[in-house]
Amino acid sequence: MSLPSRDPILLTPGPLTTSLATKVAMLRDWGSWDAAFNAVTAVVRRQLLQLVHGEGTHTVVPMQGSGTFSVEAAINTLVPRDGHVLVLINGAYGVRMAKLTAMMGRRVSTFETAEDVPTTPADVERLLAGDASITHVGLIHCETSTGILNPLPEIAAVVARHGRRLIVDAMSSFAALPIDARTVPFDAVIAASGKCVEGPPGMGFVIVREAALAGCAGNSTSLALDLFDQWQYMEKTTQWRYTPPTHVVVAFAAALEQLAAEGGPPARRARYAANCRTLVEGMAGLGLRPFLRPEIQAPIIVTFHAPSDPAYNFKRFYEGVRDRGFVLYPGKLTRVETFRVGCIGAVGPDEMRQAVYAVRDTLADLGIRPAALAASRAPG
Amino acid sequence: MSLPSRDPILLTPGPLTTSLATKVAMLRDWGSWDAAFNAVTAVVRRQLLQLVHGEGTHTVVPMQGSGTFSVEAAINTLVPRDGHVLVLINGAYGVRMAKLTAMMGRRVSTFETAEDVPTTPADVERLLAGDASITHVGLIHCETSTGILNPLPEIAAVVARHGRRLIVDAMSSFAALPIDARTVPFDAVIAASGKCVEGPPGMGFVIVREAALAGCAGNSTSLALDLFDQWQYMEKTTQWRYTPPTHVVVAFAAALEQLAAEGGPPARRARYAANCRTLVEGMAGLGLRPFLRPEIQAPIIVTFHAPSDPAYNFKRFYEGVRDRGFVLYPGKLTRVETFRVGCIGAVGPDEMRQAVYAVRDTLADLGIRPAALAASRAPG
Repeated sequence: MSLPSRDPILLTPGPLTTSLATKVAMLRDWGSWDAAFNAVTAVVRRQLLQLVHGEGTHTVVPMQGSGTFSVEAAINTLVPRDGHVLVLINGAYGVRMAKLTAMMGRRVSTFETAEDVPTTPADVERLLAGDASITHVGLIHCETSTGILNPLPEIAAVVARHGRRLIVDAMSSFAALPIDARTVPFDAVIAASGKCVEGPPGMGFVIVREAALAGCAGNSTSLALDLFDQWQYMEKTTQWRYTPPTHVVVAFAAALEQLAAEGGPPARRARYAANCRTLVEGMAGLGLRPFLRPEIQAPIIVTFHAPSDPAYNFKRFYEGVRDRGFVLYPGKLTRVETFRVGCIGAVGPDEMRQAVYAVRDTLADLGIRPAALAASRAPG
Repeated sequence: MSLPSRDPILLTPGPLTTSLATKVAMLRDWGSWDAAFNAVTAVVRRQLLQLVHGEGTHTVVPMQGSGTFSVEAAINTLVPRDGHVLVLINGAYGVRMAKLTAMMGRRVSTFETAEDVPTTPADVERLLAGDASITHVGLIHCETSTGILNPLPEIAAVVARHGRRLIVDAMSSFAALPIDARTVPFDAVIAASGKCVEGPPGMGFVIVREAALAGCAGNSTSLALDLFDQWQYMEKTTQWRYTPPTHVVVAFAAALEQLAAEGGPPARRARYAANCRTLVEGMAGLGLRPFLRPEIQAPIIVTFHAPSDPAYNFKRFYEGVRDRGFVLYPGKLTRVETFRVGCIGAVGPDEMRQAVYAVRDTLADLGIRPAALAASRAPG
């Protein structure tokens, strides 16, 4: 396949489209032992902490690998060997958190709601009141399987009132949806470079309550994923414990600078919300309906019901839209046929509008009947 | 600090200096679900396999994170829960392998020689004959702590004769020193993107005997580092199991192409050997002696004794050489004061010669007496 002169726009939950300035930052090689690189790491850690107003209470520990590596590191380090984690599930990332907790030998319980039903504070209240052995609660802030938003501040308050600890997978919400350490009690918030900060993928990070982390020496059963050890080493030496993904770190730093220049998380959230609105309205015009009700839809990624026309085939649909310049994402639901479209990355409403046109033209190309007609039959 | 117009050359064990073509490959964003990206992953896996002539017997499983993540993944997946690993140690990477094996709850024994003494096949023969419970042997091919080369083919033959399994950390030797799966029996050879293939850091990989890996379902206590699961998912879907470091993967693919264009590992080895020779000869002219005897010195990284002059201070020496355009590496030995100089990366003998001049000028600047005089007193 010959490469197109312009790259397709990634409307995916990450890796996503990054700015040219972010990518250009990768055109240099850095010594991982050198002071210049370690200064970049220090700035990244400080800026991430400021994004959640965690100065004085929390610390940021970056970790090599994808976001899942950071989730596993947080749980393996923060949960003592005899701890008991309650994982709140309404999608694939909750399932994954429960699985990795069980694999490392920690006790785990799960509470699962349907993929279009957020966990409620009342659920958590009841579960914690009913089981004093639960030490930690694991929550997915925005579950990328569907794009559903779980009520973090309200759940955090319940967990704190019961004296338990909260570990939040904020992979796809961090830097776009508000998370304030001054008002939302948590032990760990986990995210990654290649999401709403709009950096390249390759590293994650855990924003962790320092007093909690300080007591976690010896918890981890993994050396590579020992967050305590990574933290201690970094504090002592300013360096990463093992080889960092230097190019990714420096590009992530550039992305953080651009986030600040844009106006920080509130501005980014506003852009993503405009993206999401443009997308949903445009798709509605084609008769394509979101899977979630608007009030629980985060402006991160939207799951759409696939067209009901028998001529629809995801692979051909995906390829048609991609050849028109936009990379969509498959659905992750088993009971209904869906596809997903991300609202995040270095894109704005113009790109979302163009994506809708690409979807429209692809559907026409595939001989799918005007979907608006199908939709007029479908609701309910 | 204002950035220099030309980046310093990294004479380090990785991250190292990469070519501009490799870095430029990072100027595109790739969807991790897209066929175009998965085709890149497939090519990378195939090319790595060809480098060790493992076609038909072995498979390549890439893993997110630094090389240590891949070492931990290999051991956690290949060693059963009741396995017993003998780790052969003559430096920090051997110590690290033993530590991570113990942390994940596997039984581990160690055999340690001095940092300038390679493990011998006779050592391994005696150790395996004396303990039938040992199931796996862990070996560091080139121990970057000093640059010492351990005799891989000879040790592999002993391990195979005893019916045990061999896991090789070939982090700093892979693609430069010969490893031939047709003649050297091993279950796993582990390396990373940012070493002698000359890619950016951010991913590792394990070249693993397929028949061995096939029996390893359920061994791993880590989800993120489960090599079996990563392999199965990749075979079924062509995709990485969790978000790959897309930019790093694509740059690594570019680096592999350049390795082939250079003439493969033999040509690369010849270049590194010329680098090493130029370096050692030039430093000898300054009176700076290598820590290792030439016959056990791999042409990857050279440990030098620090000048004996009391005016020597590593930090000032390092900064002086760096400001002249070359990033050196600190020593990793506790009993003698040393520094290290890498011979690997997108550099040739010209750069090594210039590095020697930078060292000479820095020593003069620091007021260190002509080291040649010191050296004439020092040998022995």
